[in-house]
Amino acid sequence: MNRRQQRYGTLSAPQGDLALRYTSVRQRSMALVAPLSEADAQVQSMPDASPAKWHLAHTTWFFETFILERFERDFAPHHAAYRVLFNSYYQGVGDQHPRTQRGLVTRPSLDEVRGYRQAVDERMSALLRGGVNAEAAMLIELGLQHEQQHQELILTDIKHLLSCNPLRPVYRRQWPLARVAPVAAAWRVFDGGAVEIGHDSNGFAFDNESPRHAVLLRPYALTNRLVTHGEWLAFIADGGYCDARWWLAAGWDWVRANSIEAPAYWQRDGANWTSFTLHGRAPIDPHTPIVHVNYFEADAYANWRAAHDGQACRLPTEAEWEHAAQSVSQSVADGNFVDSGALHPMPISRAGESLMQMFGDVWEWTASAYAPYPGFQRWDGAVGEYNGKFMINQYVLRGGSCATPRDHIRASYRNFFPTDARWQFSGVRLAKDTVT
Amino acid sequence: MNRRQQRYGTLSAPQGDLALRYTSVRQRSMALVAPLSEADAQVQSMPDASPAKWHLAHTTWFFETFILERFERDFAPHHAAYRVLFNSYYQGVGDQHPRTQRGLVTRPSLDEVRGYRQAVDERMSALLRGGVNAEAAMLIELGLQHEQQHQELILTDIKHLLSCNPLRPVYRRQWPLARVAPVAAAWRVFDGGAVEIGHDSNGFAFDNESPRHAVLLRPYALTNRLVTHGEWLAFIADGGYCDARWWLAAGWDWVRANSIEAPAYWQRDGANWTSFTLHGRAPIDPHTPIVHVNYFEADAYANWRAAHDGQACRLPTEAEWEHAAQSVSQSVADGNFVDSGALHPMPISRAGESLMQMFGDVWEWTASAYAPYPGFQRWDGAVGEYNGKFMINQYVLRGGSCATPRDHIRASYRNFFPTDARWQFSGVRLAKDTVT
Amino acid sequence: MNRRQQRYGTLSAPQGDLALRYTSVRQRSMALVAPLSEADAQVQSMPDASPAKWHLAHTTWFFETFILERFERDFAPHHAAYRVLFNSYYQGVGDQHPRTQRGLVTRPSLDEVRGYRQAVDERMSALLRGGVNAEAAMLIELGLQHEQQHQELILTDIKHLLSCNPLRPVYRRQWPLARVAPVAAAWRVFDGGAVEIGHDSNGFAFDNESPRHAVLLRPYALTNRLVTHGEWLAFIADGGYCDARWWLAAGWDWVRANSIEAPAYWQRDGANWTSFTLHGRAPIDPHTPIVHVNYFEADAYANWRAAHDGQACRLPTEAEWEHAAQSVSQSVADGNFVDSGALHPMPISRAGESLMQMFGDVWEWTASAYAPYPGFQRWDGAVGEYNGKFMINQYVLRGGSCATPRDHIRASYRNFFPTDARWQFSGVRLAKDTVT
Amino acid sequence: MNRRQQRYGTLSAPQGDLALRYTSVRQRSMALVAPLSEADAQVQSMPDASPAKWHLAHTTWFFETFILERFERDFAPHHAAYRVLFNSYYQGVGDQHPRTQRGLVTRPSLDEVRGYRQAVDERMSALLRGGVNAEAAMLIELGLQHEQQHQELILTDIKHLLSCNPLRPVYRRQWPLARVAPVAAAWRVFDGGAVEIGHDSNGFAFDNESPRHAVLLRPYALTNRLVTHGEWLAFIADGGYCDARWWLAAGWDWVRANSIEAPAYWQRDGANWTSFTLHGRAPIDPHTPIVHVNYFEADAYANWRAAHDGQACRLPTEAEWEHAAQSVSQSVADGNFVDSGALHPMPISRAGESLMQMFGDVWEWTASAYAPYPGFQRWDGAVGEYNGKFMINQYVLRGGSCATPRDHIRASYRNFFPTDARWQFSGVRLAKDTVT
Repeated sequence: MNRRQQRYGTLSAPQGDLALRYTSVRQRSMALVAPLSEADAQVQSMPDASPAKWHLAHTTWFFETFILERFERDFAPHHAAYRVLFNSYYQGVGDQHPRTQRGLVTRPSLDEVRGYRQAVDERMSALLRGGVNAEAAMLIELGLQHEQQHQELILTDIKHLLSCNPLRPVYRRQWPLARVAPVAAAWRVFDGGAVEIGHDSNGFAFDNESPRHAVLLRPYALTNRLVTHGEWLAFIADGGYCDARWWLAAGWDWVRANSIEAPAYWQRDGANWTSFTLHGRAPIDPHTPIVHVNYFEADAYANWRAAHDGQACRLPTEAEWEHAAQSVSQSVADGNFVDSGALHPMPISRAGESLMQMFGDVWEWTASAYAPYPGFQRWDGAVGEYNGKFMINQYVLRGGSCATPRDHIRASYRNFFPTDARWQFSGVRLAKDTVT
Repeated sequence: MNRRQQRYGTLSAPQGDLALRYTSVRQRSMALVAPLSEADAQVQSMPDASPAKWHLAHTTWFFETFILERFERDFAPHHAAYRVLFNSYYQGVGDQHPRTQRGLVTRPSLDEVRGYRQAVDERMSALLRGGVNAEAAMLIELGLQHEQQHQELILTDIKHLLSCNPLRPVYRRQWPLARVAPVAAAWRVFDGGAVEIGHDSNGFAFDNESPRHAVLLRPYALTNRLVTHGEWLAFIADGGYCDARWWLAAGWDWVRANSIEAPAYWQRDGANWTSFTLHGRAPIDPHTPIVHVNYFEADAYANWRAAHDGQACRLPTEAEWEHAAQSVSQSVADGNFVDSGALHPMPISRAGESLMQMFGDVWEWTASAYAPYPGFQRWDGAVGEYNGKFMINQYVLRGGSCATPRDHIRASYRNFFPTDARWQFSGVRLAKDTVT
Repeated sequence: MNRRQQRYGTLSAPQGDLALRYTSVRQRSMALVAPLSEADAQVQSMPDASPAKWHLAHTTWFFETFILERFERDFAPHHAAYRVLFNSYYQGVGDQHPRTQRGLVTRPSLDEVRGYRQAVDERMSALLRGGVNAEAAMLIELGLQHEQQHQELILTDIKHLLSCNPLRPVYRRQWPLARVAPVAAAWRVFDGGAVEIGHDSNGFAFDNESPRHAVLLRPYALTNRLVTHGEWLAFIADGGYCDARWWLAAGWDWVRANSIEAPAYWQRDGANWTSFTLHGRAPIDPHTPIVHVNYFEADAYANWRAAHDGQACRLPTEAEWEHAAQSVSQSVADGNFVDSGALHPMPISRAGESLMQMFGDVWEWTASAYAPYPGFQRWDGAVGEYNGKFMINQYVLRGGSCATPRDHIRASYRNFFPTDARWQFSGVRLAKDTVT
Repeated sequence: MNRRQQRYGTLSAPQGDLALRYTSVRQRSMALVAPLSEADAQVQSMPDASPAKWHLAHTTWFFETFILERFERDFAPHHAAYRVLFNSYYQGVGDQHPRTQRGLVTRPSLDEVRGYRQAVDERMSALLRGGVNAEAAMLIELGLQHEQQHQELILTDIKHLLSCNPLRPVYRRQWPLARVAPVAAAWRVFDGGAVEIGHDSNGFAFDNESPRHAVLLRPYALTNRLVTHGEWLAFIADGGYCDARWWLAAGWDWVRANSIEAPAYWQRDGANWTSFTLHGRAPIDPHTPIVHVNYFEADAYANWRAAHDGQACRLPTEAEWEHAAQSVSQSVADGNFVDSGALHPMPISRAGESLMQMFGDVWEWTASAYAPYPGFQRWDGAVGEYNGKFMINQYVLRGGSCATPRDHIRASYRNFFPTDARWQFSGVRLAKDTVT
């Protein structure tokens, strides 16, 4: 086995149904933009977000650049300028169109991007029909996982865009979602010790999940469910956003500089709070998991809760979270993912003994800075830029959200965002030490 | 005659063909956006510019707000939210959607805005069929003049947007434009003395053109034609953008802070310069008038020319310009306006004895700060915000451009922009004192 | 008479007592910094202000550069680096230390700067003892006028610095100043017509005051006294800072972006307003002229007053102001200048028939953009940068203030600042048309 | 033992010579500012830095607030306003003067601050003479450790200020420092395994160094000495600052946004580089440790070295560093600290078998985000704000520098700065995995 094979060892083995999976994932992207007008798909509402049209084109560029260019006989680019125009950040592939100006590219049109997708899909299908070697298969799987990440971003970015419109437009109306009686929070205890985290080499994983390695954990506990909107209302009512005691210094600066008084998308409507959802503006449902809070808010909430309950609590580390996720019976399949169509975190439908809501609903902030695992090696070539160069000044989130495709997530999956990011479906689960 | 009538005295008398004119102007706006996709019409490429869709809606809002709401029996708004959404800056009408966020409003769609236009047009037609009084007629004329101003902005704003696209898209391809042998620059002399400027009350004028009043002018001369691209190339070649001597202090700060080395839309292409036009990227034609320069550049060019020619020269004042425009035989009808379809300043087709290119081609920067004329009175009501509140920190431009409708311009017309604005079709004519 | 002599024609003829005047002006600068510590003299509290130490050094640099370097036999610089370090903005003299970093230059020390002043003073004295020609005499007079301008800035800049200190330190305690019974405002009428403004060539003037020239004025009136603090309190009480109607568009943007609710240096102290003065924090005296308002505020006040009084009023033009100043009996000598020691605008001590407070107390904002007079010519050489290159985006103020040396001012004197500047001693006198 | 006692358990036991140590540390601060003028001590040259006068006052405020106010009988504040003026960031103590405006406070004068120090020192001496309990003793020790941290900042902040002066002033001239033959770099190997880090409870430690706890380390190696200026010159010569491959994404953005091409304080002087030191501008000595690089640069250098040497290398984790520091024979006493008077990193004077330069010379960037140790507890009360609230978006540095007092450092000491900070004496030691 040569070095390159070794390095791609964490990519999944070629699957008989790769072609089928390719078609399915690609179609899912188109389904997500179906409710959007050409104008909706064009606009970049803030620097962190990208236009839906750009997501459609960039994911296609990924297949063209990393698979077709390398494995297709007589490769010729679909459009020479797209190499730069839809390159997100791969220095190894050459220049990139400036990130903040993605919304200014009104041409190619949405139809032309659809044509680009179709042309690449046909060429990919031909390639797949001809059979691909293990490396190509792995890169195709990477392209599909990449596209699934952008599917989530299509939803979070369009949510941000629509929220900027005073007419409060709707992405898809399906409200009210189910209402269920609340489940009391309780601690679930773990012994800790020397445990293993990281990907176990079954199926696909990103390079940042490897190598699997041992870590030492002290005995700890996690709450059985996510922090809810109702619990957050109590934090607000108790002056949580007005009291420096709960906040990291940088968080407090952020609160004051931006006059923050509630999670993103919240708005006072008389005496009550409402929030903007993909179903339009809606009242706060106290039993649903809190969402659209950033690291600063998650951490402040934990500090307030500790003082309020008279018992230390905090955010979990990513190792604690992953060890717990390995240990419990809840499977990924139980989660509220994009596949459910809810597009919003949901109350618990069925209380259980074990940890609930570990997968889906909201990404859970951890206390862990995003860093390479011991012995981490980037993938070879330009795809080596996929993760490694972002391992700084960001924090890890775990478990996927209501905008994540179900077959995209796993216990070792590491998402990461800066501490002030709020437009993702990000929420909170609490942890504590059980021995002090 | 009551006071209100008196105050609207500069508005044109009701015309038999007002309905016809209404239809014609309104259709012209739609014709201008015909080459645009929904995406093109959606995007705001910089704070100074607005989306084409917004221009279409705002001009319609103007008729709905200032004519229908006041003169229509049983008025009801087309859509309650539009009152805020498409209000540009009229504090007297209530809140406004923030200017910098116009591009985020993807809904109403372009089709819905077309529907808004059609509905208001039908109601306006009904109103006109029923006959309108003098005040309504004047306000309708104001609405049409207002729409013509936005027609020019549709072109300058879309030019800016398309220029941001590395694919260099084309608004309308009609290149090369005519080429003609150059005309030598020469001075045309005026005696000065006590002369009158301002609107003479024949036909429509904005409030800022009144009252007509006397000013004292020293003997002066203007160049017979506009400064050309070829002359500007000589300025650049002589280091014009690298020599503080020619520049106002604020202009020099602007040059250095932005690393300016040529007019807007210019780009080096090997040894040559090209510029972005509405026909795509094109080589610099030395015989066409220079365009897309701001006040700082216009003033620096004049200072450089004075040193270069060993003879003082400068920008004209607006009074000098207007007096000259009154005195010469060239009529507005000769100018290169939007009606010609060139959408770019053109070389002189036929040399004459008199001043040439006074109307059309490019707006000519004057040395005059935009200020109220002696005895200036704003119009009554919210339309009083039309001009007066902008009379600060801006400078006057005269004569109209290749993006201006021909029937919109006149000798007394005062356009105005800040000293660093370059995205308008703005150029330069020189002046000098003939007695020192 | 050669050209250079002609160009310096507006400079004063050599005076027998130039050496005496030199000593007197230079000593006055040192007296102004006497109450300052080395730390006070070091700090630059905002980009518009400069450290007192810098003012002392820069004015000395002016004499060294423009007089000694040209007229001294065997000239050698006091310190080679000072040529750049203390050059404010003269491109013709070479590089300049960045304006915003003047406060970082802790060495040379204040003592070394004192030494620099003394050395240059000795060399200047030697030069003057030897006799100077007309051109040198004119440049020396320019240097003295220049130093007087910086004397005013020493006071306005130190006032700003001290106001930033929560301990509210005092420059010089002399409070309370005189209190006098109020004088009712009244209009003083002028016929207008073709009048002459600009310097009459008697004594020194800056190049920007020439050439003297005719302007046409419509009949107008000015108020007999300055707007007072008491009148401004009424403007605030009536919601003046909360009502867009009174404000220029750019002014309203400024009010909202900066949450402005009162003039600079004001602070609410319970139910009352106080302001920071060079004598420390003090209650608002309603009979003193309003001070530390910018153009936007001055213009808004005039608009509010017009609506409040039901009678149009506005800011005067500089031509109106100067014509009035020529016509009235009040002499410069009556004014409250820095010589009085009050360092604050004062109430009227003696009501008269004529215009009062035209000179001293506060600089009066005019409606006139700062522009070259017809036929304006800059001085030759680097001193030609003194005024001309700033004639853009600024407005003219007239009459001098309580921080201006009395022998520095005259009717034709033109001061100028941007529309948002408030740290100068700037106030308001109203004007109106008497024929409409 | 009550809870409070328990929480302060990591503070040193009261020492017989605490009074002596108090005097010694406090005098050392005064000695450091002895070469400064009042102007030098006044200015804040950038937001990250503070004026030397402020450091002197703030450290005094610390003793007044946390010791005198609590333990002194009949406590009265030295000056009521100082409570706010010299509070850095302790929300628990009340308001703070804005950090960026520390340089504007010209009064109290430097002499008054000296008086403040003297008064507090006298009261502290009286308190110590009377005997203090364990808690007071611990807080006094904390105050001394705090003051030692500010002693380092006095030097780094004054270095930044003096570097802004084009005259290149000198803090203390002692150049050239010793030159010694270079020592070849070599790897020193460690077995890893489950090792303990964190403070061992002997002597003082900050709360962030506790609790001591086990971590798992893979086998690793560190270089025997620090990366040198000479090695950095090779990185620059090889285009290190121009090649995105070596840089974290955020680092590359920083390089381009700021046009970085060398470490802080470097300047090209013809063909050679010089750097600004506390001894003035000096040529780069290739054998001295590299200094004034930020995390981005340190990380990029490691990546470049790995590619250059064909062998993976990286920054050490803080656990690797601390374990190595525990294991080697070099004592703190060997280091080049502020006590040596060099005020600059020095070449190795004597090559050894073990790790060299672990203590002193430059702070060594580690790959570890600054985070609480497992089971971390903040100190009680306002001093709990000392460390915990900064545990976000910063990275740990280890070992102390040439500006650190020798008796202030230890193997478990954790310093921390954001990834773009360069004005500290920060450098690089490389690490690698020995098993892959």
